[in-house]
Amino acid sequence: MTSLEHIDGLIAPNSVAIIGASEDPTRIGGRPIAAMLKAGYKGRIMPVNPKRDTVQGLPCFASIEGLPEAPEAALVAVPAKFVPQCIEALGRKGCKAATLFSAGFAEAGEEGEAAQRELMAIAARYGLRLLGPNTLGVYNVEIGYYGTFSSSLDTGFPIQGNIGIASQSGAFGAHLGALARDQGLGCSVLITTGNEADITVADAVRWMAASDSVDVICTYMEAVNDAPALLAALDVARAAGKPVLALKSGRSAVGALAAASHTASLTGDAVVADAVLSEHGAIILRDPESMMDIAYAASKKVFPQQHSLGVVTISGGAGIVASDEAERIGLPMPAMPDAAQAKLLEVLPYGSPVNPLDCTAQALNEPGLLEEFTRAGLEEGGYGAVLCFLTYVAGSEVLSKVILEAMAPLREAYPNRIIAFCALGEPAVLKRYDDAGILIFNDPCRAVRALDAVLRLGAAQSQTSSSTLSAHQPVKVPATSPDEAEAKVLLAEAGIVPPPEQAVHSAEEAVKVAEEIGYPVVMKILSPDIVHKFDIGAVKLNIRDMDGALAAHAAILAAVANHAPYARVKGVLVAKQISGGVECLMGINRDPTFGPVAVFGLGGIFVELLNDVALRACPFGPEAAREMLLSIRCAAILQGARGTEPADIDALAKMLSNLSIFAVGIGERLVSIDLNPVLAMPEGQGAYALDAVIELDSEEVVADVH
Amino acid sequence: MTSLEHIDGLIAPNSVAIIGASEDPTRIGGRPIAAMLKAGYKGRIMPVNPKRDTVQGLPCFASIEGLPEAPEAALVAVPAKFVPQCIEALGRKGCKAATLFSAGFAEAGEEGEAAQRELMAIAARYGLRLLGPNTLGVYNVEIGYYGTFSSSLDTGFPIQGNIGIASQSGAFGAHLGALARDQGLGCSVLITTGNEADITVADAVRWMAASDSVDVICTYMEAVNDAPALLAALDVARAAGKPVLALKSGRSAVGALAAASHTASLTGDAVVADAVLSEHGAIILRDPESMMDIAYAASKKVFPQQHSLGVVTISGGAGIVASDEAERIGLPMPAMPDAAQAKLLEVLPYGSPVNPLDCTAQALNEPGLLEEFTRAGLEEGGYGAVLCFLTYVAGSEVLSKVILEAMAPLREAYPNRIIAFCALGEPAVLKRYDDAGILIFNDPCRAVRALDAVLRLGAAQSQTSSSTLSAHQPVKVPATSPDEAEAKVLLAEAGIVPPPEQAVHSAEEAVKVAEEIGYPVVMKILSPDIVHKFDIGAVKLNIRDMDGALAAHAAILAAVANHAPYARVKGVLVAKQISGGVECLMGINRDPTFGPVAVFGLGGIFVELLNDVALRACPFGPEAAREMLLSIRCAAILQGARGTEPADIDALAKMLSNLSIFAVGIGERLVSIDLNPVLAMPEGQGAYALDAVIELDSEEVVADVH
Repeated sequence: MTSLEHIDGLIAPNSVAIIGASEDPTRIGGRPIAAMLKAGYKGRIMPVNPKRDTVQGLPCFASIEGLPEAPEAALVAVPAKFVPQCIEALGRKGCKAATLFSAGFAEAGEEGEAAQRELMAIAARYGLRLLGPNTLGVYNVEIGYYGTFSSSLDTGFPIQGNIGIASQSGAFGAHLGALARDQGLGCSVLITTGNEADITVADAVRWMAASDSVDVICTYMEAVNDAPALLAALDVARAAGKPVLALKSGRSAVGALAAASHTASLTGDAVVADAVLSEHGAIILRDPESMMDIAYAASKKVFPQQHSLGVVTISGGAGIVASDEAERIGLPMPAMPDAAQAKLLEVLPYGSPVNPLDCTAQALNEPGLLEEFTRAGLEEGGYGAVLCFLTYVAGSEVLSKVILEAMAPLREAYPNRIIAFCALGEPAVLKRYDDAGILIFNDPCRAVRALDAVLRLGAAQSQTSSSTLSAHQPVKVPATSPDEAEAKVLLAEAGIVPPPEQAVHSAEEAVKVAEEIGYPVVMKILSPDIVHKFDIGAVKLNIRDMDGALAAHAAILAAVANHAPYARVKGVLVAKQISGGVECLMGINRDPTFGPVAVFGLGGIFVELLNDVALRACPFGPEAAREMLLSIRCAAILQGARGTEPADIDALAKMLSNLSIFAVGIGERLVSIDLNPVLAMPEGQGAYALDAVIELDSEEVVADVH
Repeated sequence: MTSLEHIDGLIAPNSVAIIGASEDPTRIGGRPIAAMLKAGYKGRIMPVNPKRDTVQGLPCFASIEGLPEAPEAALVAVPAKFVPQCIEALGRKGCKAATLFSAGFAEAGEEGEAAQRELMAIAARYGLRLLGPNTLGVYNVEIGYYGTFSSSLDTGFPIQGNIGIASQSGAFGAHLGALARDQGLGCSVLITTGNEADITVADAVRWMAASDSVDVICTYMEAVNDAPALLAALDVARAAGKPVLALKSGRSAVGALAAASHTASLTGDAVVADAVLSEHGAIILRDPESMMDIAYAASKKVFPQQHSLGVVTISGGAGIVASDEAERIGLPMPAMPDAAQAKLLEVLPYGSPVNPLDCTAQALNEPGLLEEFTRAGLEEGGYGAVLCFLTYVAGSEVLSKVILEAMAPLREAYPNRIIAFCALGEPAVLKRYDDAGILIFNDPCRAVRALDAVLRLGAAQSQTSSSTLSAHQPVKVPATSPDEAEAKVLLAEAGIVPPPEQAVHSAEEAVKVAEEIGYPVVMKILSPDIVHKFDIGAVKLNIRDMDGALAAHAAILAAVANHAPYARVKGVLVAKQISGGVECLMGINRDPTFGPVAVFGLGGIFVELLNDVALRACPFGPEAAREMLLSIRCAAILQGARGTEPADIDALAKMLSNLSIFAVGIGERLVSIDLNPVLAMPEGQGAYALDAVIELDSEEVVADVH
């Protein structure tokens, strides 16, 4: 079945059966009924309970078989052991979508996993889609559908709006929903996916991307259980212009451990997930608060193309605090053009017309100043967003009317820009601004961060995204991991260049090859059994003549005989010694979730101490590789910082792109590739992989698994 | 007059005169009267206005002279040009404290500065203390004193509590006050210092440190106008156990300087201020929100000694998000002891007893679980704080009673630990927890950050602070900046060791000295006029014998003759060539606010690209220097990362401490000292300053200034 089939029935059903319906509105089987009755759900509610004639005033049915029609959705609130027979009965009845509140499945150990597989098998026979098990369910505010037992509804129903929430964790999803409500923010749907036996967060995102009722998608994930589907869903959302905000937990050592024991999922490497999800346009977040702030800002559907901020303030201090935050997070605050500054100085000689634009406390006497400074920021400053720091002044009952009157016309004159206030006061007063399309934040720094995220979205939408590659040739690799010389031959065929080099099998041959290549050369042992060649003396550098070559060859063989007498020796590699340039490393790791992921960094401490690396899912073209190279913190070193020549970034980018294509070509047997060091020579002089290790699963192992 | 004299009269006066009193409660001269009448200020309010008999129902006086008594405080709300005569009259009348609302002084250019100096002169004659001018004033909630015209009071009065706010910016200070109020947080005083002609934020902090009504001090500063007083005030506050939270704006100006590679320009104002203020115990913040969060947490006056967090959760997801945030900011979350885990697993087999402690949604049915898990975290886990993620569950009217009943006894059983909830719901419901001593946050990550800050305070209180040095000898320095050889002699006397070296004045002498020192040596020109010696070829390395020495000497003189023919040549420096070790730099920069500040970093890209430096105000002892060395991000390199030997950190620390003492000894003529590179040899082998530049103001210049 396709991933979206019958999901509409789960999220926006015309009828729903509650299996294990309860009269008690605080029990799992009673809460959804009570909520739907209260919210005025227009669909048919069919309680199922053999022991009752009515439930909460509704006619109750003794069995699934006895239902008067196939329910579009079913809510299953019975103990785990009864779930299989319910699914069977629902399937036979013709129900195509069931939400399984019941716990005691994959999250509860091996037996539960087996039970969950059994559920899936039954559901598959009937083409029945499952949400859960171990889910808190779904709500759909517009139609009053509350297929959930969340007690978050005890403190109030959600406000209707255009934000959709998809969460693996039920309680955390409901927390996001309640947080939105408490902040006056409107939601459309909440979908919690629990164990994700069938429907995943990816499916929920895909549904929201296509739904008219959702404009902003908030997601919480502990593990990505279906990476291709998730990335495809992100692409669809991006194409639809709907921002996806992603909180992926399990970053910390403690967090990762806890995530493994929660919701039956294993968290992948969070850093890889961050990189891959943001490649596909997701905004990666760490905390619910910033998620709601950005969702709020994005919910107005104004995404200016200018990634720049103007700050208009009645307090110099607040202007500086906001500017500091903007600089910290990289949101540009360009100065106003000189002419515009001069004009504003004429209007208010004691003001500051640069940016922040300080119209001083005089704006309390003349709210027109606020309008004038803000208009200048939008018009002459050309800022994507103008943030006005008005604090309690905006919350004043009297002034709020004057301010709104002055500012509302600007909202209409500049429909594609953002006007935001930092304001304190009664929610009812502040809501008037919001209703007029002016964003309201109570903290200047939170405002700056949320605006930055939305402005980045707008700027990204106006760029063509760097193309990812889809076509690639299969690469033929040996049955077991190749040695260095073999690896370099494979890599060279893929356009990843080693220095001139050749494997030799005698002292005479070593001298001959060295003379062909030209001194100075390096020599190193070729053996699949010796990993730390350098440490045992099986690498020799600075070989400058025949005597040196003979001596080095003998010394290497002696070192191996001495330190690794049982190693398989396949020869000695003689290579041109290349010096100068910038030492880098690049490699591939097969991520369990996202497949081969390329990593790039500078050599030495940059990676070891600073962890200054860039990641990207394979494959990708040279342009994307170039972006990746330049995204590391110390990219300036490649560009010629510290008085050295700029490195050949084009060659490096081509090599990295080729490596990413090569990695995908190898397929599932690839474990990792390690090119360390890669020497990036000065501009125009290329880049060389000086060492290469390719690790493969051996053919038999893979055969075993499949 | 001492810095605290008469400040009580400003902040907690028994009587107040309003000069320029207005009948209109929305005007500057009317607002304070209206506010005090409304708040029930018990002191005598004496309006002064020649045109009226009464003001807002109070008897009004025609002049300051005509007041029936000397007011303890005066509020001056007249145009700038009338302020001097008011001060004069107030002084004659015997008033000792005036708050000057009037603007148009130092903030308004040179004329205003002169006018401000005039005010100060008049005030000084009468021993009259001034707040402002250009201040929004003061309020003191407990006594209902509102010596302010802030319109923040239009949206409500502050709640009485134990937080004090001192702000240079009026509007920003009032924003903090309004923010506290809107969050249900109690304040004691707000003091805004405006132009700080007399009373500064330092004085306000000092007053709050001594005041019974303030337990937590929040400060906002744009410039530190009286550094010694501020640091002394911070020390008093620390000794009194009162946390000082500091928001120092103006960071972004630093960004522009950061690129420069000279030691002196590595230390921007804000970075230095951060370093120095936190040395004195201040908590440095960037945004009002975190300030209020930490103030709230600290206002309970519980500062556990354990810097560790336990998270109890009903949602695995939230537990992970909180853990991720704790790890990100370095708040330890140790696992529960095995025995305690086993016990909790018996209680709840499906729970997770490690940390986060997940008592699952089962806690909704059995609130006793929440108590049991929290108790275990406090007792067996020994955590300084336990954060319970309860979200909307805690906000439920019904459950809140049960939860409070279960948890309140823990609050009493563990008075020196923190119990906090992440909770959503009606403020009135949540306040019940707060009243019982349980902290309430609505965001788990904000909660983690605020708890971390308070736990660090507790941990810091239980440590002895690293001693700063007070005694130091004056250092005699030449009339102008010394050359390298002279600088090194001075430094050597202060215990900052150069390699064996000597200045020479002929080729023969060069050879003789080189042989005494022992080859290899380096040679470099000694000239006050040549800064970039290396670039013009006036430095020679790897000199291995007599021929080399003669050639190098000749080459250096030739290079100078060629590239810098007019430079004053004082000789050639012959020095032992030292290699190996870790390249560092250390230096001193005289900060305009805080005096000599030491900077330490590793050489090369560490400083240039990563800006990885540590700063500390001079002087300090070797222990503080050691902390400083080890506080840089790449300290692992000093400790022997990357397979190299650990560096002689003791020698480096001693050198840095000696340098800090030396810098203070030089006194005000010191501009900067630059030791770059310093070579830290392997452990036990010392550290050498290979190059040294001391920049002094010449004696005449200093004489001019004083």
